[in-house]
Amino acid sequence: MGKGDTTREAILRHAVGLASRVGLSGLSIGRLAQELDLSKSGLFSHFHSKEALQIQVLEYGAARFVESVVRPALEAPRGLPRIQALFDRWLAWSESEPSSGGCFFVAMVTDLDDRPGPSRDLLVTLQRSWMGLLADVVRSVVREGQFRPDVDPEQFANDMYGVMLAYHHASRLLADPAAEARARRALASLLDAGRTAAS
Amino acid sequence: MGKGDTTREAILRHAVGLASRVGLSGLSIGRLAQELDLSKSGLFSHFHSKEALQIQVLEYGAARFVESVVRPALEAPRGLPRIQALFDRWLAWSESEPSSGGCFFVAMVTDLDDRPGPSRDLLVTLQRSWMGLLADVVRSVVREGQFRPDVDPEQFANDMYGVMLAYHHASRLLADPAAEARARRALASLLDAGRTAAS
Repeated sequence: MGKGDTTREAILRHAVGLASRVGLSGLSIGRLAQELDLSKSGLFSHFHSKEALQIQVLEYGAARFVESVVRPALEAPRGLPRIQALFDRWLAWSESEPSSGGCFFVAMVTDLDDRPGPSRDLLVTLQRSWMGLLADVVRSVVREGQFRPDVDPEQFANDMYGVMLAYHHASRLLADPAAEARARRALASLLDAGRTAAS
Repeated sequence: MGKGDTTREAILRHAVGLASRVGLSGLSIGRLAQELDLSKSGLFSHFHSKEALQIQVLEYGAARFVESVVRPALEAPRGLPRIQALFDRWLAWSESEPSSGGCFFVAMVTDLDDRPGPSRDLLVTLQRSWMGLLADVVRSVVREGQFRPDVDPEQFANDMYGVMLAYHHASRLLADPAAEARARRALASLLDAGRTAAS
């Protein structure tokens, strides 16, 4: 990477954290310049407009999610261990990534759901592809014979997402010390409900 | 109600809808005055400050939730029918209330989770009391012998909240036509998992 790429990366990393706290709609080149002590004109040369900045922040967040959660989890053995790996890494991402805003995508969802435009369209595409990936992994668990054939992959992906949203609510808003234990029990119940006698 | 109360009620009703869309932090006396075509000074005489307005909007939203969801559902027979009634009315509230922002409280949760202050404190109190009420209803289902004694009421309340958050995500952001059917199936699975053989 050249110096420009390194700077751009550092800016985007900071912007993802800022957007997790104030919403993507609260993210502007001016505010970012102020927080990073950079010139507005310098930031404009990287991102051109508020809209382009928002799109790049979403794309950068998605790339980090793939890198931290999806890619390593897909190295776990096919079947139930792979679902568990996706869940564990997703939970770790919600806790640690990036800086202090909790799960970047959860924050984006309620920020953008009522704001039509290119950022919302991109977020919808990203969320659909994540739900689609979860459903594909569930399908492979059925094929491996560890889930019953009547398990509905889209329903399972939806329910797993609900577990993660409830975790986010209990941990970020309510500061409930049992939040993580509850999320793990909720996933275990979902897995148990789908499991074949043999698995 | 006097004329002042009627006006105050109409303003708060509109403010709840606006806050559902732009977040409580985006709600200001100026913006509300503009949308309602009222004078800022008139609104100040009702609400005194942005902070006081935000608190009153949360309180008004909570009162409407109790009126539309909690009170009528508590008239359903004790036990499983009461959980189902709470869920049905909660789902109807998320769809219809108030104006177009989706569930007011879901919108507030991610808006306020990173913003310390009196509004966040009040929201935490309201959310805890709602989760506590759900857990109490689950406890009464256990006492009625319709749920097994090992059902954890707090876990059940947490999981039911997750179902509702996943519904909100699927319906508001993804515009998924299967969102409601999935939420109903997810609740049915939770109920089945807790049910005694006799119920």
